[in-house]
Parts: sequence; structure tokens; C-alpha cells
Amino acid sequence: MAMRSSLVFGVVATLASATRSSGQDTVRFVPTIAQPTFAVREPVLRVKPRTVLISNTMFGAYYTREGGAFPGEVGPIFVEGATTKDMLVVKIRKVRPNYELAVSRVYSDFGGLASDSRVRMLNEPIAPRRYVWKLDRQKNTATTEFPNSRVKRMEIDLQPMLGRVAVAPRGQEAFSGLWPGDFGGNMDASEVREGTTVYLPIFHDGAYLYFGDGHARQGQGEDAGTGLETSMDVILEIDVIKGKTIDWPRLEDDTHIMVVGAGRPLIDAFRLAHIELIEWLVADYGFDKIDAYALIGQVGESSVANIVDPNYTVVAKFPKRFLPR
Amino acid sequence: MAMRSSLVFGVVATLASATRSSGQDTVRFVPTIAQPTFAVREPVLRVKPRTVLISNTMFGAYYTREGGAFPGEVGPIFVEGATTKDMLVVKIRKVRPNYELAVSRVYSDFGGLASDSRVRMLNEPIAPRRYVWKLDRQKNTATTEFPNSRVKRMEIDLQPMLGRVAVAPRGQEAFSGLWPGDFGGNMDASEVREGTTVYLPIFHDGAYLYFGDGHARQGQGEDAGTGLETSMDVILEIDVIKGKTIDWPRLEDDTHIMVVGAGRPLIDAFRLAHIELIEWLVADYGFDKIDAYALIGQVGESSVANIVDPNYTVVAKFPKRFLPR
Amino acid sequence: MAMRSSLVFGVVATLASATRSSGQDTVRFVPTIAQPTFAVREPVLRVKPRTVLISNTMFGAYYTREGGAFPGEVGPIFVEGATTKDMLVVKIRKVRPNYELAVSRVYSDFGGLASDSRVRMLNEPIAPRRYVWKLDRQKNTATTEFPNSRVKRMEIDLQPMLGRVAVAPRGQEAFSGLWPGDFGGNMDASEVREGTTVYLPIFHDGAYLYFGDGHARQGQGEDAGTGLETSMDVILEIDVIKGKTIDWPRLEDDTHIMVVGAGRPLIDAFRLAHIELIEWLVADYGFDKIDAYALIGQVGESSVANIVDPNYTVVAKFPKRFLPR
Amino acid sequence: MAMRSSLVFGVVATLASATRSSGQDTVRFVPTIAQPTFAVREPVLRVKPRTVLISNTMFGAYYTREGGAFPGEVGPIFVEGATTKDMLVVKIRKVRPNYELAVSRVYSDFGGLASDSRVRMLNEPIAPRRYVWKLDRQKNTATTEFPNSRVKRMEIDLQPMLGRVAVAPRGQEAFSGLWPGDFGGNMDASEVREGTTVYLPIFHDGAYLYFGDGHARQGQGEDAGTGLETSMDVILEIDVIKGKTIDWPRLEDDTHIMVVGAGRPLIDAFRLAHIELIEWLVADYGFDKIDAYALIGQVGESSVANIVDPNYTVVAKFPKRFLPR
Repeated sequence: MAMRSSLVFGVVATLASATRSSGQDTVRFVPTIAQPTFAVREPVLRVKPRTVLISNTMFGAYYTREGGAFPGEVGPIFVEGATTKDMLVVKIRKVRPNYELAVSRVYSDFGGLASDSRVRMLNEPIAPRRYVWKLDRQKNTATTEFPNSRVKRMEIDLQPMLGRVAVAPRGQEAFSGLWPGDFGGNMDASEVREGTTVYLPIFHDGAYLYFGDGHARQGQGEDAGTGLETSMDVILEIDVIKGKTIDWPRLEDDTHIMVVGAGRPLIDAFRLAHIELIEWLVADYGFDKIDAYALIGQVGESSVANIVDPNYTVVAKFPKRFLPR
Repeated sequence: MAMRSSLVFGVVATLASATRSSGQDTVRFVPTIAQPTFAVREPVLRVKPRTVLISNTMFGAYYTREGGAFPGEVGPIFVEGATTKDMLVVKIRKVRPNYELAVSRVYSDFGGLASDSRVRMLNEPIAPRRYVWKLDRQKNTATTEFPNSRVKRMEIDLQPMLGRVAVAPRGQEAFSGLWPGDFGGNMDASEVREGTTVYLPIFHDGAYLYFGDGHARQGQGEDAGTGLETSMDVILEIDVIKGKTIDWPRLEDDTHIMVVGAGRPLIDAFRLAHIELIEWLVADYGFDKIDAYALIGQVGESSVANIVDPNYTVVAKFPKRFLPR
Repeated sequence: MAMRSSLVFGVVATLASATRSSGQDTVRFVPTIAQPTFAVREPVLRVKPRTVLISNTMFGAYYTREGGAFPGEVGPIFVEGATTKDMLVVKIRKVRPNYELAVSRVYSDFGGLASDSRVRMLNEPIAPRRYVWKLDRQKNTATTEFPNSRVKRMEIDLQPMLGRVAVAPRGQEAFSGLWPGDFGGNMDASEVREGTTVYLPIFHDGAYLYFGDGHARQGQGEDAGTGLETSMDVILEIDVIKGKTIDWPRLEDDTHIMVVGAGRPLIDAFRLAHIELIEWLVADYGFDKIDAYALIGQVGESSVANIVDPNYTVVAKFPKRFLPR
Repeated sequence: MAMRSSLVFGVVATLASATRSSGQDTVRFVPTIAQPTFAVREPVLRVKPRTVLISNTMFGAYYTREGGAFPGEVGPIFVEGATTKDMLVVKIRKVRPNYELAVSRVYSDFGGLASDSRVRMLNEPIAPRRYVWKLDRQKNTATTEFPNSRVKRMEIDLQPMLGRVAVAPRGQEAFSGLWPGDFGGNMDASEVREGTTVYLPIFHDGAYLYFGDGHARQGQGEDAGTGLETSMDVILEIDVIKGKTIDWPRLEDDTHIMVVGAGRPLIDAFRLAHIELIEWLVADYGFDKIDAYALIGQVGESSVANIVDPNYTVVAKFPKRFLPR
């Protein structure tokens, strides 16, 4: 596939403006193309390492009162100098709703606690339902109606996050936006929020970064199949760690180092995340493998991030306070 | 099976002393028999509802520097007036180590992140290892040696809990202490700690309460197969809720109502816990089932409690602040 | 537990009559006690190795047109001289319906292709249905009505088998008749039919053999939760192989050696059965482990025996024609 | 993506020659391009419905004594007139090794009975091994050396099959040749052999048929990760059933109608295949759904086709002799 990147850069130039200070680029980028898959394709933007990207997720009718198609992903962003021997770094500096509504849904054929198209059962499918939540960005709340419940109106606080941060998958594969994997993708982990740094493996020079799928809030497991889906303003710090590779996405925030494992069945995602975490403790912190295993047994934490996507995701977490200095 | 309870009560009388004030019995009980299974058998103690039980878990060589057999469970305690139409209530008022050591282990044939006797693989088994942790009950810490790691000495804070709280299982079944199930049992949930109330179904009149398996601390998943196993002083408030039944164990603390699901594979334990939680929200809090599902999708929390026992356990949690008043 | 075996033998003497020729006992035994669990309890019969047992499964209302409770198991049969260092051998010489009806059922809360009490879903449960099949033992057929289908009457040929052959499980555990495990039990494998030899591990001296759960026929997987359940005449050759132990049940017929693995999830039962089969090929037939693995990859066969019981069962099979002479 | 099919057809014209008799085209086609994914891309050939395709799978160094890369798939073949409202029909008239060697492998990071890259464990990986089998196409046997086993030389009979028959997956997704799915793909089902007809759903007009991955023989489960991989001559009858759609691949041979379910965990592939089979019995043969479920419970057969690929595959089978006439 010919990338014709100079041509692409010309197109995008009208949308992206860049400034540079102290070795760090700040790029403002308004995406116009929603991508249907995570894959190698013509980049919509090229950035240098140490770039602060001020942008937003794609808006789509899905988020409106009327409903409609789910918007695709923003990307791919070609990160110059990023090679398959490096690691991509995406720090989530900001992720905030920029729209007044969020939508959550219950589907007949997609969801974690009822039979769906992947977990078939002979039972009749459940009835679908769609919830429109009004966002109050001042109060940081979302409110919807529950006409069939005793409590008629439900208000919850917001905890905004990005469902999807990805690089192009290995080889010539192309996965729809629903898929998480070793390329990141639709991890649907509530830990991917402001202040968290996402580390991703790189399978193609340039990394081909994608992001999207803002959730104003999401429960652990995303059991019913969606978060509070809405449009987001985002600021991402994009960087590259040279000469170091990883096999699976890693997260880091003030209190924990984390690995996101993706797979089915759930136990395989759980094991994968935890074993990668142990290998991280061994490689970077000098733990013996069995000691690290024993320690995880006493201080390990985890969250089941999603049980609805084609791969489930589990986040294995190690508290930083137990790391050697 | 004849219970010969009068005889039993005679034997136990030397060990249990009871006082009563304002309708609440306080019973001090020093157990002497370690039971190998959760089952209907001769009670070691009989209590009334509204009893405060001051007792301790069984001590065993397993906890010592030299090592040895794992001690069995305390029980069964016959709760007078408890019938199969009721629910047993066990509030954990105290669970604290009463011994200076705790032991954790890595096994060749039991553990969540390596092949074991239930999850067989052709790979060679991992090497077993045993860790003796010194407990400092003043500082609330446990310390052990990691001679093979760069950090030679690991100190972690204690978070004491009870691995096992059970009633006798349904019918004539008898499960070894390793098993969790709808009867509670070896739930290995770190949420079963001071301040938490455990609700259990009752399958036999008298409930036949068991408890044991103190952990000075345990990671989520108990991945390597043990917590910081040690001997515990416990104070349990034992009560009965008349005329109300449940199918699976429930927990409650200051912030959450919870259901413990047990089963394999992990997703089945996850689903079971969450669906029971939804049914609880419907029955007691007036939610429509689909609304409750949708809400869990946004505010649900969970922990993978154990991935090593014959049944895995998942704790599904609903924050009380979202319950209708 | 006191066995009081002499007393037991006295009771049973009216029911069992024995003859001996050429070192082989022939015992006729009409069972009268239906057992609810596989466990160590007072034997209903004691036999020597090399015994031909002519008997039958328990009859129960479950099998009748009116319906009712499922009958329990026959046993335990104490096999003299059988120790935990040996292996029990049960050759199925005969298993034939001795009643004119068989019953199959579809349950709301038990079954492999719909949500049930272990595999919970939010969907509404399916409607239960009960089928009475008329057996023609001359023609070897079963016939039932399908009033809701275009074909109103379904006739199928019989392939009689025993759902349950067990020893008492290890320790003091007691499993209801629904459970398969390393003790055999409710394997629900259609391979346990006339001509097949079942080998079982022994966890208690005397073995404590149980049998029951005749199926006039059963599909692979027993997907809907039952076979064509009926009462059976059986002839079993009971023997002991001294000084050799196994971990899981084995089967052998004219064409295959087989291992029955039991567990959840299904892949764990699959792996367990196949790895035990590989270890058998290594230990008894001189294969290198990796060679055996590679060979299984080309000539291995298997059947999913049940996906409904508390443990699923998979039968791993190796064709005898590829065994070294 | 522009197909530029006229240009493609020009290129391929030197390789494909067609004759027509009695409304059936016979096309001889020697493929030269090995494709890395199942996806919509420029067709290498265009055929009409009712075409007999005489061709072969791609040859690759993988099959040689020296070893090397696995060859990709043949395709895509654009089937004229095939639309997303139709069903693709591929009858396997011939699949026969055309090379003197076949290769099987045991991998460290890919295989069903040992930890691999998707089913991670802390255990050390197993040692890889490569087996070269000499094919005797007259005797229909394959022979290899087992130097580490007591039997030094293993000879087995051939049962040739095609591991992969696929259409392009839905949307813009592209899956590597390792993947099975609702598009068929790497089903690795030994039932896809001479005499079997494969029915596939169509997600893009033209169907975009792929085939490849010949196995001179393969065990059920393909446990160690490969069959006897070799190069094949194939004759496929390609046709379209207009106006009828299916959700998952179906197979048919002289004795059974079958559905291939693909997914992880194994039970989900099992359920999916069986439920689709029940829906087939309902739609085409007039069974009531619950009756079909009950009947599958007595006469259903199945095979675990693969437990190594990104999705496992299970073949659910219904004996034709129980179909209404």
C-alpha cells in the first residue's frame, strides 16, 4: 500500500497547526476522517516525538438524541522516527466531554450479561434499550430517565476516559474499532483517563496511532456493552521511547504500573496481563520471577475492564509503593 | 445423621462461655476440632441469633517456620431458629493475626498463573517456594526475604481478612475447605474483612456455620495460591434474617453492596455475581431489570477474588451512593 | 466412620447370591438402596476381584410416564483387596434397558445450550419440556412425539450406556450424583457401553464402587441435560490391577485407549484428558513426550461427552492401531 | 479500494484456461500470488457460478526438508453474480498431496496443550521440534522418525483435507491466514475433505473466495498446532445459492449436515455451532426449536476441530438419517 505521505501532509496542513517551544511541538488538529479499522493506511497527520496534540474524537450521530452510526477512530497519526524497535508513549493530559449528551445502550446481540452474537444461547434475546444522558459539565454529572424503575431519574458523576488508543496491528491485519489486542485498540479500560500514560508496542515504523471512543463514564466490565458514549476534547502528549520494546499495552498513573491483557476467555486475558506484569517487574525492577509471582499474590490488584468486546480486557496493577526505589 | 446435640453441647461447654445483655449473647469459644469439609455434621457449638462470638481460627503447623499441614475449619456452629427459609448474617467485627508469622507459598501443582492439577499443560511445572513472613502487629506490617531478587527484603502492610465463611452445602454434599460455592466457603475475597457483613443462604435448619483461613493480606486473585496465611482472633456477630432467602453469598460494607459468585470459568463467576446483584437491585430497590443492567454498565465495580480454587470467585459491587434512599 | 461390614453383609445376603468357577465369582445382586452422593459410606455389597456382577440400576419414578424423582446410585461396592496403590477395573459386559420407557427432558435451569443455574444470563429462561420415549427392545428403537414439529413422530435407534461409574472421591468429600471427576462419577460418556472397560483410580481401600444413570442413548455433549434416561440390566466384570495407579479415569474398547477428563471450562477438560493420554503413551508405550504430542496432533480423536454437568467431560482417544506392538 | 479487475484478469489470463460444457465452466488455474490475509483485495481470478476449478494450493518452503515460511492463501476469487443476499457453495471434489513431503511442528509459543502466546503461563515454554514426513502417495501413508521414542519410525495413513476455505470477512477487516471465523477461514476441520460441500456466507458482492493450508492428515483439535502440512492439488466446484443467507459456515457430506462454529472459549464455539445447527433444523426441516434441542441431546455429534488458532473451531453434526424426508 503506497502511503503517498507528502500528499497526505498537504491535505492535513489546513487542519493542523503546529508551534514549537523547548523541543516540544504543540499541534492543534481537527480530524475530519473517521476510520473503520485499526490498520496501516494513509496517515491523517504526522508528528514528531515530544508532541502535544490538542484534538478531539470524531463526532457521530450515535451521540445525539436521535441516534445513528457510531463514529470511527481518529488516525492514523504517523510518529516520525518511531520504529518497531521502540515503544510509543501517549500521555492522556486531557479527556473531557465537549458535547451536552451522552448515550448508553443495551443491545439484543451485544453485551456481557446476556446472550449475544458471540456467546450464543437458545434463550430469546433481551429487549434493547437506549438511554440519553444529559451532561452537566459544570457539576460533572450525567442524568437520565428510568421510567420503568421506582427511581425515575438517575444522576451519576462523570469519570471521563478514552475507550480506544491504538497502533496499527502487526502484519497486514485490520481490526474494526471494536477490537482490543496487543496493539491497544478498544481496551475500554477506565484507567485510560487524565493523568494516565499509555505505552504501546510498535508493529510498523511510524506507529500509526489511533484514538477515539470517549466515555463520560464506564463501569468495570462495561457489562451492558457501552459506556456513556460521547464526544471528547483530548490533549495527548505523544512520545517515543527508543530502543525498548514491549509485547502488550502498559499503563502508568501516580499510584500503579499496569498491563492491559486482551483475549478470550477472561482467564486468558487475566493471566496474560499478570504474567506480562511479572515479566516487567523482573526486567525493570530486578525481581526474581517466582518472588514477583509470590508478591503479586499478596499485593496485586486488577480490574476487569471489558467483557463485551471481541477480546475481553483485564488490567493487572502493581502498586508503585512496593516498587524498589 | 443423628446430631446428638446435647452430648456435643456438654463437651463444648468447657470451651464456650456465654453472657447475655440487651438481647445479645456474647459467647467465648475456643475451637479444638479442625474440620476437613463443609458439611452437615455434629455441631461444635450452638448459638442463638444475635450472638457475638469471640473466637479464633484453628492454628496449624502450616503457619510455622517449619511448615506442615493446613488446619481445617472451625465449625459447624448450629444457629438456633435458623431455617432454610431464612438468611444467615455474619458481621465481621474483628479479624486480626494472633501469631507472629504468616506463610505464603508458590506450588508446583496449585496456582493461577502457572499450569496446575486442574489447568494442565505439557510444560514442566514451576518450582515451589515457601515464604515465611514476620508480622509486626504494632506497625501492621509483614516482612520476608527475597534472596533471589535485587530487593532482598520486602515489607508490606497488613490487610487482614477471612478466606472462609460457610454454611453446610445443600443436600448431602461435602466439599473440602478449598471450595467456594453458593454456600460461601473458601471465597478468598479480601472484602471479607473487619466491618463487612456476610449474608449466606441456609440449606439446612441450623445453618451449620463454618469459618477459617485467615489471611494477614491477600492480593486480588490470590494468584499464586495463598494469602499471608496465619492464625486469627475473630469476633463475629451472628444473626438470622427471618423469612428472606438468597441464592448466593452477599457482602455489605460502608460503601458497597456486593455479591460473591463462584464457578469456573471465570466469566461464569463474573456473570453469576453481577446477575445476582442486578436481581438484588430489582427486588429490594425497585429497579427495572434492564435499567439495572444499564446502570451496572456505568457504575458497576468488581474484583476478581480468587483464580486458584476449585471454583473461582468474583465480587460484583454496587456503590451505595447510587442506591435510592 | 465404622463400616460394620459384617452386619451389612448380613443384610445384603438375601439379595446377593454368589457362585464361583475357575477363580471368577459370579454375584447376582438386586440393589435396594439408592445413594444420593459418591462418598465413603457403608457398602451395600462386598466382592472379590475377578467378580462378574449381574445386577441392575435403581428404578425411579423419573423414568415413568408420570415422572418423579431421579433414582440414586447403586453402591458402594467394597472390592476386597483393592488399595489406594491399585487401579479398579470395571468391564461393561452388558448394559440393556429393562423397562419399556425412557424419558428425556429440557430444563429451564439445567442444560448446555441455554442459560442455566451455573451459566447465568439475563435472558428469560427457556420453557421446560418432557419427552416420554417408548422403547422397542426387539427393534432396538425409541419413539416419541414431537407435536410442535413438522415431523410428528421421531424414531431413533438405541445405543445403551451407563452415565455413571465411580469410586468414592478422595478425602471426606461427597459429591452428588451429578458430578463427574477424577473419581469417575457422572461422566455421561457414550463410550461407556457394552464392551468398554473402565479403569478408575482408588482413593480409599476397598474402592467403593458406584454405578447408575442408564441412558438408552445419548448425544455427544448431552446438550439438553439428559440422555434417554431409563432403567438398565447390567453385567460388570470387577477386577483390580495391583500396584499401578492412575490419576484420571481411563477407558478401553476394541479400537481405542481413552482418558476421560472432567472440569470446567471445557478447554481444561479437553487439555486434562489429552495430557493424561500423552502421559499414558509415554509411560506404557515408550513414546517421548513431545513425539506423543506431535502424534496426537495427527491421529488424536476426541468426543465432548457432556457440557451440562458441574464438570464437563471430554474423552481423549488414541487409536490402538498406532500403538507399538 | 479500486478493484481494477479488468487489469487483473489480463494478468491472470496466462494462468487460467477455461472450457465450458453443459452450463458448467471448467477452469484450470495456477496461482502465483500467496495472500497474507483474508480480505477484500484485487481478485486473482473471476469465475461464474457452476465452475469446476482445477487448481492447487500455494507451495512454500515450510513444506520442504529445509523449512521456511508458510505459504499464504490462494485467492481472492471473484464469483460473478454472488451477492450478500446469497450463499457461496464450494464442493471439495479433490484434495490430494502433490508433493513428496509433509511437515508437522511443535512450537514453543503456539499449541493447544502447552502454554503459548495467547494462553500464557509462568512455566518455561516447551522445546520446539520439527517433523518431516515422507509421503507415499501410492500406499497413502506418511512416515517419520521418532528417534527419542521406543518406536523409532511412525507410519500413518493419509486423510487429506483443506485447512482453509474462506470468503472476505465483513466490513474492512483483514484477518491473517491463522484466523477462522464466520467467514470460514482457517477452520482446520478434518471434515473439509473430498466429498464435502462447504457453504459460506457472503459479506461482499463477489464473495472473494480463498483456499489453502492442505493437511495430508490432521488429528481432531490439531492439538500441537499443525497438521501434516503439505502442498495439494484441488478441484473445487464453485457455485452460488441465490436468495438464501447463512450466518456461519456449513458443511455437508453423505451422512451429516454440519455447522462450523468459531470462537474462544471452546464452549462458545461449541454452543454457537450447535445453536446454528438447531436453527437450521428449525428453518429448513420444520422442527420446533425445543424439539430440535431435545433431539440434538440424543443424536447430536460433534468434533473439536482446532484448539490452537486465534478462534477455536467446533463442528456440530446432525446425522442425515434422522432428517425428515
